[in-house]
Amino acid sequence: MTQQNEKKPMDMEFELKAALKCSATLEGSVSQADIDELVASCNTNLLKRGAPPGCGAEIVKWNVAEDKIKLKIVSDRFVRAHDALLRLKKEFGKLLGKHRIGIRGIEIEKYKIALDWGEEEGLRVRNLPFVKEIKQEKGSLELLLDVDESALDKRIPDRLIRLLEDKIDAARWKGKSEHWELLFESEKKPYHFDKDPTEEMLKRGWLQHAAGRGQYVYGPQLTKIFRALEKILLDELLTPLGYNEMIFPKFVAWDVWKRSGHAKGIYPEAYYVCTPKTRDPEYWEDVMDYFKVTNEVPLDMIMGKIENVGGMCYAQCPPFWVFLQGKIMPDEILPIYVFDRSGTSYRYESGGLHGIERLDEFHRVEVLWMGTKQQTIEHAKELQKRYRTIFHDILDIEWREAWVTPWFMAQEGKAGLAELREVGTTDYEAVLPYSGKWLEFQNVSVNGNKYPKGFSVKLQSGEELWSGCSGVGLERWAAVFLAQKGLDAENWPEKFSSVVGELPEVFKFL
Amino acid sequence: MTQQNEKKPMDMEFELKAALKCSATLEGSVSQADIDELVASCNTNLLKRGAPPGCGAEIVKWNVAEDKIKLKIVSDRFVRAHDALLRLKKEFGKLLGKHRIGIRGIEIEKYKIALDWGEEEGLRVRNLPFVKEIKQEKGSLELLLDVDESALDKRIPDRLIRLLEDKIDAARWKGKSEHWELLFESEKKPYHFDKDPTEEMLKRGWLQHAAGRGQYVYGPQLTKIFRALEKILLDELLTPLGYNEMIFPKFVAWDVWKRSGHAKGIYPEAYYVCTPKTRDPEYWEDVMDYFKVTNEVPLDMIMGKIENVGGMCYAQCPPFWVFLQGKIMPDEILPIYVFDRSGTSYRYESGGLHGIERLDEFHRVEVLWMGTKQQTIEHAKELQKRYRTIFHDILDIEWREAWVTPWFMAQEGKAGLAELREVGTTDYEAVLPYSGKWLEFQNVSVNGNKYPKGFSVKLQSGEELWSGCSGVGLERWAAVFLAQKGLDAENWPEKFSSVVGELPEVFKFL
Repeated sequence: MTQQNEKKPMDMEFELKAALKCSATLEGSVSQADIDELVASCNTNLLKRGAPPGCGAEIVKWNVAEDKIKLKIVSDRFVRAHDALLRLKKEFGKLLGKHRIGIRGIEIEKYKIALDWGEEEGLRVRNLPFVKEIKQEKGSLELLLDVDESALDKRIPDRLIRLLEDKIDAARWKGKSEHWELLFESEKKPYHFDKDPTEEMLKRGWLQHAAGRGQYVYGPQLTKIFRALEKILLDELLTPLGYNEMIFPKFVAWDVWKRSGHAKGIYPEAYYVCTPKTRDPEYWEDVMDYFKVTNEVPLDMIMGKIENVGGMCYAQCPPFWVFLQGKIMPDEILPIYVFDRSGTSYRYESGGLHGIERLDEFHRVEVLWMGTKQQTIEHAKELQKRYRTIFHDILDIEWREAWVTPWFMAQEGKAGLAELREVGTTDYEAVLPYSGKWLEFQNVSVNGNKYPKGFSVKLQSGEELWSGCSGVGLERWAAVFLAQKGLDAENWPEKFSSVVGELPEVFKFL
Repeated sequence: MTQQNEKKPMDMEFELKAALKCSATLEGSVSQADIDELVASCNTNLLKRGAPPGCGAEIVKWNVAEDKIKLKIVSDRFVRAHDALLRLKKEFGKLLGKHRIGIRGIEIEKYKIALDWGEEEGLRVRNLPFVKEIKQEKGSLELLLDVDESALDKRIPDRLIRLLEDKIDAARWKGKSEHWELLFESEKKPYHFDKDPTEEMLKRGWLQHAAGRGQYVYGPQLTKIFRALEKILLDELLTPLGYNEMIFPKFVAWDVWKRSGHAKGIYPEAYYVCTPKTRDPEYWEDVMDYFKVTNEVPLDMIMGKIENVGGMCYAQCPPFWVFLQGKIMPDEILPIYVFDRSGTSYRYESGGLHGIERLDEFHRVEVLWMGTKQQTIEHAKELQKRYRTIFHDILDIEWREAWVTPWFMAQEGKAGLAELREVGTTDYEAVLPYSGKWLEFQNVSVNGNKYPKGFSVKLQSGEELWSGCSGVGLERWAAVFLAQKGLDAENWPEKFSSVVGELPEVFKFL
């Protein structure tokens, strides 16, 4: 998903000062000549291995002091200085072993990486993890790293460089809108309404603002409309296609988002979940006392007594994959079709008042299928056909379909071309007559082998397992339908009305 | 709910040193004789008003220094010293007004409260809000308060005393089990199973542990059983009784729990929800960078960037009441019957592995009704009749019903007698043959006017609005049914089997 094949590789220079710490003093046992000879040999062979001619790493300074071999290594991108150091640790180990001396570890005195930063002068980098100093001058970015041996083992320097490459990619895409390409457009339909349906429903008491931001309590009328939409989805698509219902978790532990990729970029929009550090009532007594005495909840005290363990459902399918995690399935049970409608999803949306088309808390039926590559792609087409029938024959709405940046790339914080034709997302959009704006109200996505790979799910045959998902937001379907058709049943298409039936009148207010 | 009518009132002594700060020096304008006279008069009248003969507050020392009138007040429980001070501020204001001097405020030098603590020697009080020092000696508890004028305005001293009375009540009930009184017992039924159904279902792949504690992913078979139970509830109870579906919020903002009373004691068991302090991606860049470089989610960094706003659904009905908050309804629309099945509930349960009978994340249908007192009580009986029919005729289980501590008292951290016969909770319990333990699997509660009062909902007639609720935990119903009847459909009662139909086989693992 990074565009490395399109751009010239970044120039890099590495300068590393480190010491190999030995189990005993070398003075009197290993001669300077032996060390010099090994350095010369490494500079010729070991530190050039795998690099193009004339490239690689080099020890430019070295000396022995008591139990330490001090080295200064410079390199280019081909054998990075920290890789060179790890190679050298091994090679020096062999020499010292002959003198019954071991290498206890690596001490890093200084590690500087200078990168070509010509093209990206507009991109300021102010802080980076494991970096104590950053100098950005025209054309170059110089990092002074704060790393120890264990950070080298975890390949932190390489991950830092990949992070910088990602930042450059992101900066290139910034400002450019996400990919969008029209695939299909329905015929024009007459609109029966030009108002904001949420405003109108609030007036009629069909819903009320709840206590949280972007959250409503839905009254009997609107709930009945939601259940009718759900029934249409079941009767026209899920049941005929052989779907079975499952219940996916709604609290999402971090491990799930690490595997799904959401841990890369979900943070600004997540609803975070924290649990008590202990459920011992005595631990919480001061909080309860404070509330009882002031009638205010002491939020600061609470923050010190809870720990973050994950978040609430954002994309609905990731926690399903734990059901299959680490498992091997026989190929003959494919394709598999399941769906979930067991709870709420959350997004921390931008502030201000929105209607039911943009909510922090919303309700979605998640449709999930998996199979071989071919089965998965074929089934996405079948779903698209069925959705068109629903939108055309039953809801009678005006909509369009577009090929867009895959949802999981967008959710990982990546924009970019949807240049693939097999893996990707089709968005369904409809115009809201009251604002003239187009609203994305559902999607169908082929996710390739992303999830089976992330959750280590395999097929017996060794063939790649693919999957797809499609989220049906009940609020979004209702928002589109009601914006185009209005709230009065007399203007609704016959087939839809017959599913909904009579709208109940339960509450009345003075 | 405190048992004040049963116990003798606590002895108390208040000693308050404070100054009334005036807008100008009193020297030269108000004579000492005037002050002395006012003090004498207050000691005789104002500070005794409302107290039994010989009781009340008294100014025992006073003097004027520049712009301050310094007072030392002692009192008993009848006119508490801080109340006396507020009365005096007004009275002195009248006198000073004649000299065109105002009172700017109150400065509190020292406030000591000594309480009779004879009976409760076992109860140690170590910390209290707004208290800087606590001395507990045999027979007495002495508090040195840390309060200013605004704390007096908020009645913090009175709330502190109420808190201490609550602590005494709680200590008295501690160890005593909650109230439990058998109301009904079904006939004995044959058991077809002696294993833990969760263990057995894990073996069959009907469910899998999810990534969070006390959380499962439910496969197609068990989900179908849940939906059958839900359908039975709909067909046999909700639909015939005229219930309408609504969608209650699942994120619960603190304001809701303040009104419902849960903010008094929910803390050790809550799933807390926090939102980002901002959704500006730059604010989150260091977190994303850290994850990309280490593949670890930096939980400490996150805790500094989020704020607690409430928690996830615990009891299911409180957030419904926001729909009616502050409203007045005409009496003729009563009774009202609504239910919600739109999402998950959470409890931070004690650690260790449990089956589906004790979960952190679970699924519940919440049944809620309201009406006049009589309607509400009558309807609870109707529900109980219908539930018995379901348990007897369709699920064919063995169960019992008991009158217990009302659920909202238990959830506010209060045990105690369920001495009321109109407001209260009936628990339904069934034996789990594999463990011999009784499991509470549902309840029916008449909540009196608790919620209408907490959320300011009124009837046009002025009559009291009452409400009740009944939670049907799908996992609990399934746990009881499967523990008694087993997993093999051949041992299930005919009527239940016909609702469930064939169990789907979707997944297979090597």
